[in-house]
Amino acid sequence: MHFNAYSAAGTIVHLYRQPGASTSFLLQARADSANTTDGTTMSSPLLPNFFAGRWQTGTGAGTPLLDPVLGSELARVSNAGIDLAEGFAFAREQGGAALRALNYGQRAALLAQIAEVLQAHRDDYYAIATANSGTVAKDSGVDIDGAIFTLGYYAKQGAALGDAKLLLDGGRIRMAKDPAFQTQHIQVPTRGVALFINAFNFPSWGLWEKAAPALLSGVPVIVKPATATAWLTQRMVQDVVDAGVLPVGALSVICGSSAGLMDTLQAMDVVSFTGSAETARLIRNHRAVSELSVRCNIEADSLNSALLAPSATADSEAFRLLVSEVVREMTVKSGQKCTAIRRIFVPRALYKAAGLAIGAKLSQVTVGNPRSGSVRMGALVSQAQKASVLAGLAQLKTEATVLFDGHSAPLVDADAASACVAPVLLGTDSPMAARLLHDVEVFGPVSTLMPYDSLEEAWTMIRRGGGSLVCSVYSEDPAFTAQAAVELASSHGRVHAVSPDVAALHSGHGNVMPMSLHGGPGRAGGGEELGGLRGLNFYHRRAAVQGSSLALDAMAAQGCALPL
Amino acid sequence: MHFNAYSAAGTIVHLYRQPGASTSFLLQARADSANTTDGTTMSSPLLPNFFAGRWQTGTGAGTPLLDPVLGSELARVSNAGIDLAEGFAFAREQGGAALRALNYGQRAALLAQIAEVLQAHRDDYYAIATANSGTVAKDSGVDIDGAIFTLGYYAKQGAALGDAKLLLDGGRIRMAKDPAFQTQHIQVPTRGVALFINAFNFPSWGLWEKAAPALLSGVPVIVKPATATAWLTQRMVQDVVDAGVLPVGALSVICGSSAGLMDTLQAMDVVSFTGSAETARLIRNHRAVSELSVRCNIEADSLNSALLAPSATADSEAFRLLVSEVVREMTVKSGQKCTAIRRIFVPRALYKAAGLAIGAKLSQVTVGNPRSGSVRMGALVSQAQKASVLAGLAQLKTEATVLFDGHSAPLVDADAASACVAPVLLGTDSPMAARLLHDVEVFGPVSTLMPYDSLEEAWTMIRRGGGSLVCSVYSEDPAFTAQAAVELASSHGRVHAVSPDVAALHSGHGNVMPMSLHGGPGRAGGGEELGGLRGLNFYHRRAAVQGSSLALDAMAAQGCALPL
Repeated sequence: MHFNAYSAAGTIVHLYRQPGASTSFLLQARADSANTTDGTTMSSPLLPNFFAGRWQTGTGAGTPLLDPVLGSELARVSNAGIDLAEGFAFAREQGGAALRALNYGQRAALLAQIAEVLQAHRDDYYAIATANSGTVAKDSGVDIDGAIFTLGYYAKQGAALGDAKLLLDGGRIRMAKDPAFQTQHIQVPTRGVALFINAFNFPSWGLWEKAAPALLSGVPVIVKPATATAWLTQRMVQDVVDAGVLPVGALSVICGSSAGLMDTLQAMDVVSFTGSAETARLIRNHRAVSELSVRCNIEADSLNSALLAPSATADSEAFRLLVSEVVREMTVKSGQKCTAIRRIFVPRALYKAAGLAIGAKLSQVTVGNPRSGSVRMGALVSQAQKASVLAGLAQLKTEATVLFDGHSAPLVDADAASACVAPVLLGTDSPMAARLLHDVEVFGPVSTLMPYDSLEEAWTMIRRGGGSLVCSVYSEDPAFTAQAAVELASSHGRVHAVSPDVAALHSGHGNVMPMSLHGGPGRAGGGEELGGLRGLNFYHRRAAVQGSSLALDAMAAQGCALPL
Repeated sequence: MHFNAYSAAGTIVHLYRQPGASTSFLLQARADSANTTDGTTMSSPLLPNFFAGRWQTGTGAGTPLLDPVLGSELARVSNAGIDLAEGFAFAREQGGAALRALNYGQRAALLAQIAEVLQAHRDDYYAIATANSGTVAKDSGVDIDGAIFTLGYYAKQGAALGDAKLLLDGGRIRMAKDPAFQTQHIQVPTRGVALFINAFNFPSWGLWEKAAPALLSGVPVIVKPATATAWLTQRMVQDVVDAGVLPVGALSVICGSSAGLMDTLQAMDVVSFTGSAETARLIRNHRAVSELSVRCNIEADSLNSALLAPSATADSEAFRLLVSEVVREMTVKSGQKCTAIRRIFVPRALYKAAGLAIGAKLSQVTVGNPRSGSVRMGALVSQAQKASVLAGLAQLKTEATVLFDGHSAPLVDADAASACVAPVLLGTDSPMAARLLHDVEVFGPVSTLMPYDSLEEAWTMIRRGGGSLVCSVYSEDPAFTAQAAVELASSHGRVHAVSPDVAALHSGHGNVMPMSLHGGPGRAGGGEELGGLRGLNFYHRRAAVQGSSLALDAMAAQGCALPL
């Protein structure tokens, strides 16, 4: 592999800092990189893991993290030789006890401090994202600023819980006519660790959208980031650890292989996984889940849909909003979002017009090196993802035709051998007969346009996704939107309704907001994250306390909050 | 096997009725049974399955259901040759659509009608329970009247939801400063079937405690009762079907083997299992769960505890209440309740006194044929269960001594070869060193007394159960009760606090009340059932609907209820 475009210019930089180093960061210009055409032969630092309350560097050469545009090696990760059982026990015992000793308000304050630490190092994170994820600044912001926003949101929500040390779940219920004996449901933090096995596409947000509710709940976190983009996760944990915000053991990071992690789980631990359906299956089949009942949250793949109302016309505002949102979703983070629009359903009469309008907008999207000011869309995160997207595209093409292909335009400041992939819009005029189009998720800037002849057909095809994270509905008629929301709610974690009155306000089909549920049934993994304080449920155990009113009074006197 | 005690007296009766028969029931005295000493050679009727909207009798000889006291054969079950896929599709499509067409209030009214039907046939159910479960009338009532009570409770709760067709989950949340764009979480019924794979100990309550929230939610039910006691489940479904209460497809029963049932599940179906940890593991490892994300609720085994407060004395009311509750829990349904007390923790100073007091009360429990008026405790449900209990007892005896053994008293009107097992109280003075006592669940009238030296020790040992359904606490001090509740809540689905002021009111350690959560983390399976309207969560899908306030208004206008 030869990636000369930028290495020749000598602009590769390494953002790498020793844990606890006094300088805020170390910009290490690797002059030698200008002289190599094969990034993988360079020696780069092994990122230390923060585990069992101390920094530990794995043994061996480790696995390299690469720049997907330039191909150069950025860092290496390894957890070989590290005692997993020790680290999990440390987090469970030290971290858990320290967090549970605090109340919700105190833990919320820690989240606010984490947000401040991240804010202070924000420029570094953008630089790491550019180098390791190949994203343009705007796309890096979805990951980085999205995380800071989510932490701030939970800090605020948690502060409202004040000095409570347990949560009430509903009110007291009389068990008999005599009110002396009643039941009160409560929620208390699980006495275990939360293991996050995370995805490559959101190294920042993927950590903090899970860690914020976990830490607020009083449950220690161990994050295992996806190797390809582990650097940003590792660096953020390092900054938070160095800042001394959290009790030791509350937050650990272990990079590299996930082998053995599931084996260390105990019954009161929880595991949250974001990634492929295949890995999800392995996790669910592990004895920790199947025998010990370790609680397991999965967010797997999803063929999300966008639906244009049947009453729309080619010159309607709903049509324009759909076109704009589809193009945004296809191109933000090069379509590497679990929530991105993969299938677009329009009334048959608008099939051609929609294809032309989307294609016209896509043609304005410049693709290439994210360091170039004129580039709107960067690379995929790795060569492996590029290969996977191209293979998936070939599969979809057996059932669809190409309505627009951005590959006819040259890449900007990037080699054809880089991990850049241009947007492709596919289409078929017989989507009811298609199988792969409703089944194969291509995790890149690819979407398929499909006409429907009746609403019944539209519901049927959307549900063929087998359970998805999100469906967006574009309509000027609130009654239709309401009908669609109720029809689609059972197969989606979120229904996002776009209408002209919220055109400038709505949060976007694919943006996951902390106040709304994130997850989806069936194929999407069956998980639930976020949704405001609902996100705390996963990290709490619910119990009914049946007893005399006097005992329930004494319990309430210990400090309770009723979150909903 | 020879069971002459009752068959010689010619009192075996068969309560068997053809579906749709005009007579309310058919009492068929099997005179021939008096002449055989081997029940299994008798020919008895194959119970028909109500499946795919019609009565279907399996092929082959089927599996016999036996009287555990007399050994005589009562009926046979088989689902061999029945098209499982057809029945699941029928329930999913016909049953599901019919139930979803109703609102919550209408479905609640159906539950009330079911309760009426069951009430009308109550005497038959008691007769079936006596014959097939070997229970005394009071114990049969826990199963039968417990079911009718639970149906009535959900009928009332559901009626309060009125004409709503969807449930609101919390209020609207602003997504930005401008209130025009908001999110509203809703709950809608899943578009699939609820498969219940049920346990032998509650053929009645086990069906209806699950079916009530499922049907109220709008989700069709397919129940596969445990073979040993399937008759009561089958007969109740038959009565409800004959009464024409429910839309066809809303309730199906399939008896016999569970082979193939999981294979028919689709992504939007749910499965609720009560039974052994081993079967739970098979269900969780099935691809329906691990690949399709079929939602799965498990209630497996559990080593529930009773805890006497450290301040109690041998003449205290708390001590008396503990002794009384332990004896009740050991003997009700011969200890065949998932919630029964398996481990009893008392301050070390009270170890001897507690053993003597419990033993003295157990010595008054007469064991034998439930048809005899002097018998307080009947049989285990089967010879297999008897063998399992005796084997478990032998295991526990390797770590404990026998403090009381009811086997020294003769069985009343029952053969030693019957499935009757007398109560046994075990004890150890070094419970912290024990392993099996905290790990082996003996599903019969067996419990182990253990002293603790400090509260820290008590918490540690109770938690060694690895997650349990329920712990009861006996104390006269509300502050201690509150402390214990918070300590124990994370490892229990329910904490039941008994104090003198509720001595005459409390619902019992082992009784599962519909208003309180039933389930437990870890070893107990990690499931959640009941808990009032919380029980509906499992059958609903939660979704965030993000949109303009106008669209949310239109959705609310379709009929919503906010249950909590």
